[in-house]
Amino acid sequence: MPSKPRTVWAVDLGGTKIAAARVSRKGTISGYVEVPTPSAGGFKVVEAIIELLCGMPSNGIGAIGVDVPGLAWPTGHVWAPNIAGWRRMPLGPVLKKEFGLPTLVESDRNAFVVGEAWQGAARNCRDVIFLAVGTGIGAGILADGRLVRGHGELAGAVGWMALRDKYESIYKSIGCFEAHASGTGIALAAKKEFGKPLSARDLTAMARRGNRKARTVLERAGYYLGLGLANLVDVLNPEMIVVGGGVAAAGNLILKPARRTMRKWGQPLAVKHVRVVRSRLGTRAGLLGAARLAFDYCDRLAMQEGNLRNHNLTQRR
Amino acid sequence: MPSKPRTVWAVDLGGTKIAAARVSRKGTISGYVEVPTPSAGGFKVVEAIIELLCGMPSNGIGAIGVDVPGLAWPTGHVWAPNIAGWRRMPLGPVLKKEFGLPTLVESDRNAFVVGEAWQGAARNCRDVIFLAVGTGIGAGILADGRLVRGHGELAGAVGWMALRDKYESIYKSIGCFEAHASGTGIALAAKKEFGKPLSARDLTAMARRGNRKARTVLERAGYYLGLGLANLVDVLNPEMIVVGGGVAAAGNLILKPARRTMRKWGQPLAVKHVRVVRSRLGTRAGLLGAARLAFDYCDRLAMQEGNLRNHNLTQRR
Repeated sequence: MPSKPRTVWAVDLGGTKIAAARVSRKGTISGYVEVPTPSAGGFKVVEAIIELLCGMPSNGIGAIGVDVPGLAWPTGHVWAPNIAGWRRMPLGPVLKKEFGLPTLVESDRNAFVVGEAWQGAARNCRDVIFLAVGTGIGAGILADGRLVRGHGELAGAVGWMALRDKYESIYKSIGCFEAHASGTGIALAAKKEFGKPLSARDLTAMARRGNRKARTVLERAGYYLGLGLANLVDVLNPEMIVVGGGVAAAGNLILKPARRTMRKWGQPLAVKHVRVVRSRLGTRAGLLGAARLAFDYCDRLAMQEGNLRNHNLTQRR
Repeated sequence: MPSKPRTVWAVDLGGTKIAAARVSRKGTISGYVEVPTPSAGGFKVVEAIIELLCGMPSNGIGAIGVDVPGLAWPTGHVWAPNIAGWRRMPLGPVLKKEFGLPTLVESDRNAFVVGEAWQGAARNCRDVIFLAVGTGIGAGILADGRLVRGHGELAGAVGWMALRDKYESIYKSIGCFEAHASGTGIALAAKKEFGKPLSARDLTAMARRGNRKARTVLERAGYYLGLGLANLVDVLNPEMIVVGGGVAAAGNLILKPARRTMRKWGQPLAVKHVRVVRSRLGTRAGLLGAARLAFDYCDRLAMQEGNLRNHNLTQRR
């Protein structure tokens, strides 16, 4: 019978690094390790994960949770656009076979929102959005405590939202919201203004030193971020939106105009009550979310097994 | 112990009329009746509902389901902006006391999507949006078969979505999406073009007779409808979007440009797979949805009662 483990291995697979740790049922992280993601991609990446886990103490470990930078199907297969050869990588099945443990694989945005609602800024909230604003823009969504996945696991592809009515050719490849508010969008805007593609971090430093143009570029991105936030609030009426990713590091230079724009455009009552905050967990959100999802998965397995046993007992009577 | 009824009374409360009928567990509607909604508002409307139900055969009725043009709290209290004095009307408690039956009150947009997923265009779909495009714009949302309500029952207030980056003063009262694609928005656009506020129905008739300007006004509304659809698909990745309400009656004059625009702007894979269709149930969607929600409510009550009884039996052993 599947047990309800007290500790799991959590793996946060990113495009540049792989992090792993032990996570307890109380959310305590221990034995953190990380390695670079093998640039060769393919099975080399799976091998790197296996090697990382083999080096970690296995006493008391009852399951594995992994979050991935892409889409994960319920079978544990993964599509990850930034890792070479990961079109339908059987990551879950391979790890399950290798270690003989229940293994849960989930997209990073879903793990992030679960992590934040469990141990981060959105603790105890049931209607939460994690908005990752980095190179791209994506969202993890909890509605009444449950992940919103969509029909084809594509829910939260919010970087594609239309926030203006004039089409630009760049929207064909990265979507309107992303083109104006992501790290990519900010670099493009900076290139127009400064002749070179500066990052949100560069612009933040310049703005803090008094550079007006840098401030304007960040404010403009914050304006579009606010339109996007308004739309998310209108559709989902969350209690909290946690903003993470590299662009969030610009802090109030982007978030202040974003909140102001959101309040101006969104449904008046819903925008009044939502809290828009920065992620507190940072990179731990993925590890914690993957762990929590692995615990939940084991608990479901144990419950199903329990129901089946009760059913068999009833039949025998 | 609460029973699992085979028939319920369903009531569809609108701003202009009240409809009621018996609905069976199979979705068969019988004994349909309707009366105008008393313009005095307040308790007169509650009395009209009671009178309507008193005139209907009560044999075999096990519950009441009501959908309302506004917000319903879990307590059965209702806020309905288009009915005078309905700021926090205790509709559920009053009906429950009057008839001694379990009573479930729900917002119309939630009832519509449940009705369509049960007996209408979205039968057997678990990820569905009902987009009501009438005087205003609102959405009912099912994610994995469950209603998305939001933190304060405000989810689906999509008429407020930002679809362009230039603010107009009208957005203060009705929201950007609504200002460009609702019946109200179409009437405003028609007034600019023709000097009088024509309805979507008027414009449809004119366009079908070859009036170019009427066609352009509808196409423009369809363009904004498409931007709104794209955003809903990006956030929620539904299998189907059912478009209802008066504006949907313009059919392909609006829906064709809407689908084209949605496909151009939205997440490529998600917009490729979603089906955008017109409501088949029309006004029956509310009655069927309210009935289905009442059946589900009774089943939950019966299950809770059953669990409690089992628990008591266990305790006694």
